[in-house]
Amino acid sequence: MSEPLPDDLWPDVKPDAARRLMAAAIDSFATRGYHATTTRDIANAAGMSPAALYVHFPSKAAVLSAISRSGHEQALAMIHGVVVSTKDPVEAIGLLTQKFVAWHAKRHRVARVVQYELNALPEEDYRAIADLRRRTEQLVRDVIGDGVRSGAFEVTDARTAARAVLSLGVDVARWYTDGGKPSPGMLGRQYADLVLRMLGAKMP
Amino acid sequence: MSEPLPDDLWPDVKPDAARRLMAAAIDSFATRGYHATTTRDIANAAGMSPAALYVHFPSKAAVLSAISRSGHEQALAMIHGVVVSTKDPVEAIGLLTQKFVAWHAKRHRVARVVQYELNALPEEDYRAIADLRRRTEQLVRDVIGDGVRSGAFEVTDARTAARAVLSLGVDVARWYTDGGKPSPGMLGRQYADLVLRMLGAKMP
Repeated sequence: MSEPLPDDLWPDVKPDAARRLMAAAIDSFATRGYHATTTRDIANAAGMSPAALYVHFPSKAAVLSAISRSGHEQALAMIHGVVVSTKDPVEAIGLLTQKFVAWHAKRHRVARVVQYELNALPEEDYRAIADLRRRTEQLVRDVIGDGVRSGAFEVTDARTAARAVLSLGVDVARWYTDGGKPSPGMLGRQYADLVLRMLGAKMP
Repeated sequence: MSEPLPDDLWPDVKPDAARRLMAAAIDSFATRGYHATTTRDIANAAGMSPAALYVHFPSKAAVLSAISRSGHEQALAMIHGVVVSTKDPVEAIGLLTQKFVAWHAKRHRVARVVQYELNALPEEDYRAIADLRRRTEQLVRDVIGDGVRSGAFEVTDARTAARAVLSLGVDVARWYTDGGKPSPGMLGRQYADLVLRMLGAKMP
């Protein structure tokens, strides 16, 4: 059940105990659901006492917020990084689809918490994360809009198209399983092809 | 919160009390999550006693199974109905995408339970539903395969493409909200266009 804790998952979270608690929370939420998980469950799964959990997080909701915020910030940073790396909308959409899809496959257990537990977030955290999501979607919509203006894409509604691109990636977290086929990288490339066709890009 | 209970939602479920309990369960699962919901919560939400619930369902899991089985059977029947109604793969994929997407938008609260609580199903029910899902995906894959052979579609991997078509529809349940824009019917038509492009269909 337990996902090994890769170094690149939460590089900005310190100390290591906080990251261990976040990883334990992901296992507990996957097993029992968020609502039925207690802080004791999370602490136990991390091999720590409930008191030790409270040193790092004031509540179960705070652990969820940390996981959700980190996931959304990473997604936004990744897409922003792609968008500023090239002026070619076709290259940008291909690359960001590849990376977004591969992340949701490789980190499907984390991604399920990031994507499916928004309603359990405290209101202030929810607003902050809704803002990250809007900015992420806007970046994708802007690239699609650029491509439509330059004639690289043929799309009737850039908003629906942007949503569909991200939606395809998010839903990978629902159905992807450990050791799944195709590999995260291959799935990312296949989906990038499908997405570029969907946007009416001239395929080579 | 409570979704009105439309006549066409579970036409095969009798008596009315059983349907009321299924609708109440959907509200309770949406509010508390499946794991933290009790049979008492469901009975209360339906305005019934816990004893009255047990007349119709032996357990909370049985209510979930009834909701999940009905949703999956409806999806399979809908897609099967489209597939046998036309020999044209482009028409079939366009129509089934439209209907599948519109259903997930219109019934997003039911669809979330149908699509996201599979892991909570008792093992035997899970197997039955996994079989319905396989048959549904196979129907879509076969239509795509027919279209590739006839030259109507241009697709590298029919399996990944079929998964992407269904995945786009399923994920609508995650993000669609009551009174959402575009309307379920319009979203279905927009997604049908995107999906046909994705499969390399010659667009008119």
